[in-house]
Amino acid sequence: MRMIDQPLLVTMGDPSGIGPEIIAKAWASSQLGGAVVCGDLQVMRRALATTGITRPVAALDSPIDLPAVPEGALPVWQPEGLPAGLSGLPWGQISPAAGAAAARCIECATAQVLAGRARALVTAPIHKEALAAAGVDFPGHTEMLQALAARHAGLGQAPAVRMMLANEELRVVLVTIHVSLRRAIDLLDTPGILQTLRITHEAGRRFGLAAPRIAVAGLNPHAGEGGLFGDEELSIIAPAIQAARDEGIDASGPYAPDTVFMRARHAAGHPGEFDFVVAMTHDHGLIPVKYLGVEHGVNVTLGLPFVRTSPDHGTAFDIAGTGRADPSSLVAATAMACRLAAA
Amino acid sequence: MRMIDQPLLVTMGDPSGIGPEIIAKAWASSQLGGAVVCGDLQVMRRALATTGITRPVAALDSPIDLPAVPEGALPVWQPEGLPAGLSGLPWGQISPAAGAAAARCIECATAQVLAGRARALVTAPIHKEALAAAGVDFPGHTEMLQALAARHAGLGQAPAVRMMLANEELRVVLVTIHVSLRRAIDLLDTPGILQTLRITHEAGRRFGLAAPRIAVAGLNPHAGEGGLFGDEELSIIAPAIQAARDEGIDASGPYAPDTVFMRARHAAGHPGEFDFVVAMTHDHGLIPVKYLGVEHGVNVTLGLPFVRTSPDHGTAFDIAGTGRADPSSLVAATAMACRLAAA
Repeated sequence: MRMIDQPLLVTMGDPSGIGPEIIAKAWASSQLGGAVVCGDLQVMRRALATTGITRPVAALDSPIDLPAVPEGALPVWQPEGLPAGLSGLPWGQISPAAGAAAARCIECATAQVLAGRARALVTAPIHKEALAAAGVDFPGHTEMLQALAARHAGLGQAPAVRMMLANEELRVVLVTIHVSLRRAIDLLDTPGILQTLRITHEAGRRFGLAAPRIAVAGLNPHAGEGGLFGDEELSIIAPAIQAARDEGIDASGPYAPDTVFMRARHAAGHPGEFDFVVAMTHDHGLIPVKYLGVEHGVNVTLGLPFVRTSPDHGTAFDIAGTGRADPSSLVAATAMACRLAAA
Repeated sequence: MRMIDQPLLVTMGDPSGIGPEIIAKAWASSQLGGAVVCGDLQVMRRALATTGITRPVAALDSPIDLPAVPEGALPVWQPEGLPAGLSGLPWGQISPAAGAAAARCIECATAQVLAGRARALVTAPIHKEALAAAGVDFPGHTEMLQALAARHAGLGQAPAVRMMLANEELRVVLVTIHVSLRRAIDLLDTPGILQTLRITHEAGRRFGLAAPRIAVAGLNPHAGEGGLFGDEELSIIAPAIQAARDEGIDASGPYAPDTVFMRARHAAGHPGEFDFVVAMTHDHGLIPVKYLGVEHGVNVTLGLPFVRTSPDHGTAFDIAGTGRADPSSLVAATAMACRLAAA
């Protein structure tokens, strides 16, 4: 059986956030790409009710049973081991049960993808404090997926991955993510940046670019202004760029963080100078991707042995349960997962 | 004599950068707001030639002599003490003489404004490495203006100032600026952030807003995610916001850095939620202001005893001397200086 015949798996995310309802809305408008939801049956029923969708849920024993789902029913595969009473949790509140359920769905969905019973993973938003409250040992999706992939491969060391955020204008790859800014600076080193450049280059090739143009943003104001405002550009970043160039990768920089994203921006009448920007910190990279709106941003994890995308927003606890959440980014993430899994 | 009758003073910036030519272009298109240039006569003649403007330079003994300048001549006041041979310096190269000249012009122009012989200061870009090469003890304009204002007032302590970057969509005020990112984090403290909020509130009132809505961006990813990714939000930033609120300032946050600028953005069909965003670091604040292009961005120094604006770009050594530099940001800076000095 070709992998392309397998369904996508979409994890429900934190049951107290907007994940279930954006899944319900995307599915009801036929924009969920033939996916199966990995989540709690009752939570998904509540999500349908919340969004005014009067259709049933079909409980699957396995994601590959998708073809047996009756027309007009939302296909949900509920993994074993979810806490009870999830659909009674209040909207928009941190809860250990919600965190545990979200983590369990990610774990089980990933196992299905790794076992070849689903072709790609799309993850709805989780709440990191809920994860922590549940005693989950990972700060977010990416780290959890890395560990699961390593365990599956029987490797002690997790595969090196990087988070990419992409929209119509920009593709940004992050060297550091969910750590304090202080710790992010401590974590920067030449091998880590070089690895980011290699992963980005490979991803660019898979996107069909013969020689991806990769801009590297500096860490400090004005990229250190020749060493006056910090020396990480000279001592850490520039050597990584040089090493990448020696391998034939079209990397350049380090550029001033405040103008490189503008230079890379692809818009009508403004062809970007670069195909990717590598950013040293979470917010240097995400501020420009999100500036024009988070609706069409997609998060792609580069470096995993499978395709994984997610919407470019969080659990939006403030509007969870109102049915007002916009499914656009989830739809974009699903479309990108389909495209990448078919490549 | 009313201050409004005095001219604006525009410093030439680094003579090897684009400053002189954008001044020449803005002036030739009648968009320099009746300003006098504080710079080197020969450098400004070279700038006119470079941009193909065949008009003479008028040498003023003092900025207040502007009314005596013949129609069609560029009014230039050359302060004493500039190095010789500036107009023979190669374009686009760091030179101690250029740095010294740029600093001298800032110093003398500021003295004129402080003495009431000019009503506001607009500064063309300088190169910080050239300043350093000249032995100038300040990393940039802002710090120099602060020291000059303190000396003028006979104060040992410089007035607290903050850099604001503004365009049509956003007004961003920075807590830290021209230091390494590591040092910026070390410098953050509750009094400094509170002072930023007070300065921003006062500026908003001067802009005609009865109760300026000030959003405070966090430092860490997700504004620390409740302490998981850094504690500066809890220990330093939140107390400053609370103290400001206790004074009646409409400050809120700390918000996640990657979405607060999007929320504050004023665009067609997208009324911003806030009037100002206060950012902890140079690039958190400047990345979104510059993302859509630097042409219309203006830098305003808040907290000085006079009005000072500047274009939102650097010396652009790569295109200096080609006549291709875009004067739009200088024009916007001049217009904002006129408006603020008249308020």
